[in-house]
Amino acid sequence: MKYGIAIFPSKKLQDIANSYRKRYDSHYSLIPPHVTIKEAFTAEEDELPEILEEIQSVAGTVDPFTMEVYKFGSFHPVTNTIYMKVRENETLSALRNRLNSGKLEHHYDYQFVPHITIGQELDNDECSDVFGRLKMETVNHEEKVDRISLLYQLDNNMWTVYETFRLGIGE
Amino acid sequence: MKYGIAIFPSKKLQDIANSYRKRYDSHYSLIPPHVTIKEAFTAEEDELPEILEEIQSVAGTVDPFTMEVYKFGSFHPVTNTIYMKVRENETLSALRNRLNSGKLEHHYDYQFVPHITIGQELDNDECSDVFGRLKMETVNHEEKVDRISLLYQLDNNMWTVYETFRLGIGE
Repeated sequence: MKYGIAIFPSKKLQDIANSYRKRYDSHYSLIPPHVTIKEAFTAEEDELPEILEEIQSVAGTVDPFTMEVYKFGSFHPVTNTIYMKVRENETLSALRNRLNSGKLEHHYDYQFVPHITIGQELDNDECSDVFGRLKMETVNHEEKVDRISLLYQLDNNMWTVYETFRLGIGE
Repeated sequence: MKYGIAIFPSKKLQDIANSYRKRYDSHYSLIPPHVTIKEAFTAEEDELPEILEEIQSVAGTVDPFTMEVYKFGSFHPVTNTIYMKVRENETLSALRNRLNSGKLEHHYDYQFVPHITIGQELDNDECSDVFGRLKMETVNHEEKVDRISLLYQLDNNMWTVYETFRLGIGE
């Protein structure tokens, strides 16, 4: 089964993201707007208790933090993805690192760029066109993040939240 | 903001439900397959801490239970909805009652029929046609339910899980 870990932002920020996603994001109907903290990984159901325990333990050691969305970005030419960029901060990096080490170890061959995807699988012209317009726009939003969510993927590629974990209360 | 409380079944049962939903359910892309325990209700964000505490307290007093899906049903002619029927049991009823009383009080003018919707907003002919076929089929599935989810609705009508609550560990 495929699992992943994400932050779901407030309704306000999700509504903003969806105003773009409905036109540009091929995954619009598969999952609400989110910041991926741990990319899709495969695990058997009998490994789940240990995974839950590990996430709980990580979440408990990381305090709630302020997430700032401050500009639009694009992964073009690597992928034709457009996103709202989340400002990097130590807490978010620590969360990312701890959720990809120990029992949850995973190495990525690229740098972590925290973001909320608002467009993907665009063709080259549309990607540069849309991003060209968006990078002139301002986006400036701050909010408290106090929880993370473990999700699993259904056969139709949609994601379901299995469990949420509050930050900073596991000690 | 609109909130609701639901049980999300296992991937296996969700995949079965989705095999019907993709053809017959107008809400297919708005929310994964679920059993509604508390219908959509409106609350202000500043009421949320009290609501969370109340749900936590209810979840803690209800033990995990076995959910049995045993046949197809339809709400026709009230609504042209087709569903997989969940066998009624005391724990599920208690959960439903407690999540609609006290601080979460809500009176319904219809009986609680626990179910997983697989088709809705069908026209009359399609509804009776599809249900006519489905009621000849058997569905027989049992699984453990050990958590409930509080969701909120986005402007595009999609639902996001805000928090999950494990059953029976709040005492």
